[in-house]
This record gives sequence, C-alpha cells and structure tokens, in this order.
Amino acid sequence: MAKLNAAARRLIESGALAHLVTINEDGSPQVALVWVGLDGDQLVAAHLSGRQRKLANIRRDPRVAVSFESAVTNDFGLREYLVVHGRAEVTEGGAPELLQRLARTYIGPDAVFPPMPDPPAGYLTRITVERIGGNGNWSE
Amino acid sequence: MAKLNAAARRLIESGALAHLVTINEDGSPQVALVWVGLDGDQLVAAHLSGRQRKLANIRRDPRVAVSFESAVTNDFGLREYLVVHGRAEVTEGGAPELLQRLARTYIGPDAVFPPMPDPPAGYLTRITVERIGGNGNWSE
Repeated sequence: MAKLNAAARRLIESGALAHLVTINEDGSPQVALVWVGLDGDQLVAAHLSGRQRKLANIRRDPRVAVSFESAVTNDFGLREYLVVHGRAEVTEGGAPELLQRLARTYIGPDAVFPPMPDPPAGYLTRITVERIGGNGNWSE
Repeated sequence: MAKLNAAARRLIESGALAHLVTINEDGSPQVALVWVGLDGDQLVAAHLSGRQRKLANIRRDPRVAVSFESAVTNDFGLREYLVVHGRAEVTEGGAPELLQRLARTYIGPDAVFPPMPDPPAGYLTRITVERIGGNGNWSE
C-alpha cells in the first residue's frame, strides 16, 4: 500500500482541484472535477445527489484515479503533479458537513456551502490509496 | 460529432495543463499531465519517447478523456472546467516542433524546448473530439 508523504498531503489540502477519473460501463474513462480532502489516509469527496454518473461508475468498478496540479515548476519548466490511484467506496450521509469544511479552503474562509437551506445528507466517496504517480516526490 | 466552441478553443490554447486519461490493460484508469494544442479540430500532444504507458494504452484502446481547469468561477463559487472525450491516434515524428510551439505558451515566449541538442523525432497523439463535458459552456 502506497503512503502519501507530507508534500502530497499539503497539495491535496491546498484547495487544488481534484480531477476524479472513473470508468464507464463500456470501459471508457469519465472525468469530473471535485473538491477533495483527507480523512486519515483516505481521500474524501462529497456529493449532494446520488444520481451522478461518477457514483454509478464507482459502485460498478471501484478503481479510480485522481490528479492534482501543483504550483511548483521543475528545472525543465514542467509543472509538478500528483496522481493517486486507488479504490473508491460510496457511503451515505455527511455531504453538507464535508462540503462546508472544504468550501473554506476551495472558496474562502467565510464561505457558506452548500448555498441552500436543509441540504440533503448526500453521499461521500472515500478513496483508499493504492499507487502514487505523477511528476514530483509524493510518496513516503 | 461534438464541436468545441470558441471558449473551449481559447482554454485549450491558454496554457492550461491537460489531464490526459488513458485506459490500462486491466481496464483501470491512467492519468498523465501533458501540454496540448489544437490542430484544426483535433487536440495534439507530443512525446519524445515512444516507451510511455499512455502511448501503449492508446495503441491498445484509443478511448481517452482530457480535462482542463478554467480560471473562471461560476455563481456558486465552483470553477468551470472542460472535459473532452475522444479517440486518440499515435503518429510518428513531429514532437520537437510541436513541443517548441507549445513551450511558448506553457513556459514563456522565449522558451527553448526540448532542452537538448538533436532531440528524437518522437510521436504525436492526435485526439478527435467525440463528446464534450465538464462545467461550463464549451460546445457549439
């Protein structure tokens, strides 16, 4: 099992957008940009609606990849980036609380999100890290 | 066949990094960040080496997705983004010329890339757009 190092954890929690890749029923790739945080060693994302293609994909095939752009440029002028390969699981509830926590990073410290009264409990996607790639030094 | 609108073409040529998703032999997703430009209606990327997992993946299964972050934030505080789903083809030659053209956008107007004398002719990946997604208005 691969383990994210401190630099990878900082990038994930920096407000960098997560490009979440799932696999469609026909085997083709699907991408959605989501907010992601850490819960222990897992990556977590929140969804108010359960009727999303990415959630249906994960329930059928849990293999996902998540990529993040770093602000750091290497000596060749190429931007560093992190790719996390893992297995995802969808659980019920907790979406508004996680979205509110992540909104403080992704929008700003005073953000209120989701922008509605009485949001649904929604769903969380929890990703267990299996392999770490990209361009940069991201694993322990 | 989906057609990119002017906003999508501007984003692709703005120096936004392309998250290129290919499918591994076991059906799991693979992501690499690459420079991408337009050649007519196709997206094009260049590779000095042909021994890259993404190229082997494309030769086996041409279905790819490419995602780009926009700098624009919508009314809910969410960043717009573009996802291009398409079919990729790997052709021989032309990599140094395309890399030099793209380096002027991705690094800077005076960039010299690749940073070596006599680079190999390499390979191009040409992506034909089949479906356009993401968050924003990107198709004609």
